[in-house]
Order: sequence, then structure tokens, then C-alpha cells
Amino acid sequence: MSKSIFYHAGCPVCISAEHDIVNLIGAEQVEIVHLGEDRERIAEAEKAGVNSVPALVTPNGNTLHLNFGASIADVKA
Amino acid sequence: MSKSIFYHAGCPVCISAEHDIVNLIGAEQVEIVHLGEDRERIAEAEKAGVNSVPALVTPNGNTLHLNFGASIADVKA
Repeated sequence: MSKSIFYHAGCPVCISAEHDIVNLIGAEQVEIVHLGEDRERIAEAEKAGVNSVPALVTPNGNTLHLNFGASIADVKA
Repeated sequence: MSKSIFYHAGCPVCISAEHDIVNLIGAEQVEIVHLGEDRERIAEAEKAGVNSVPALVTPNGNTLHLNFGASIADVKA
């Protein structure tokens, strides 16, 4: 099974949710992507249905938006 | 370690998120609470910081709001 992907942008809400997700599903089960640093992956996140960060894209392609840190529009700005 | 608690209200967004969470962290790691049926647990959910469903309260007490199905106010109405 492929990993989940956790997209974030370094905001406090993102970091808090990242810790929770890593604790819940295990660091080896999730790839962490910082869209503020890996800007070339913003398009990939949008394609997966990510409208805001933090968000978790599951191995079967569903997107879970976790709380609300920032919109993708703000991350792109 | 205690379980996470997943609060929902039977809405389609809730059911979809429930499947994702159970797949990610395992059915034995999460208690599922349907606030529409277990109405006496609404106060407990509010105390844990749940403002909308679906939401996951982690073993260390953090609340993750997952996507958005319904506000707690709507669940109580």
C-alpha cells in the first residue's frame, strides 16, 4: 500500500496537526510535504483536491482537510 | 494508550471520513460515536473542543476537524 501524503505550509495549525497525524498513523506511513518549501508540488496537491492546509491525502486518493491553517491560494501567493 | 474518538452525525461527509480514518489508524484504535444517536455525548464532544463533525479527538486530547459535515449547533438542533 502506498503512503498517505500530508501537505502543510509550516503554520502552527499545520505543525500541530502533523504531530497528531504522525502519532496516529506512524511516521513511516506518511510523507510530509511542506508546500512553502516544495513549491513545485503545489500543483500536485491541488490536483489531489487539496483546498487548504493542513490536509492529508489517503492512499486511496481521498483528501481530508484537517482544521484550517491556510488556503492553497494563500500558499501560492 | 487510550483510543481516539471519532465523532460524527451520519452525514455523507462523516461516513466518508470515518472510512478513511478507520483505514488509516485501524478500527481497534478508534471509538466511533454517532452524535445523532448518542445525543447524551454531545456535551462531552463540545468539552473536547469539537465544533463540527466529523472530528477526531486524539488520545492526547487534540481535536482534528476533518472536512466539514455539520456544525455541532446543527447536530443539537
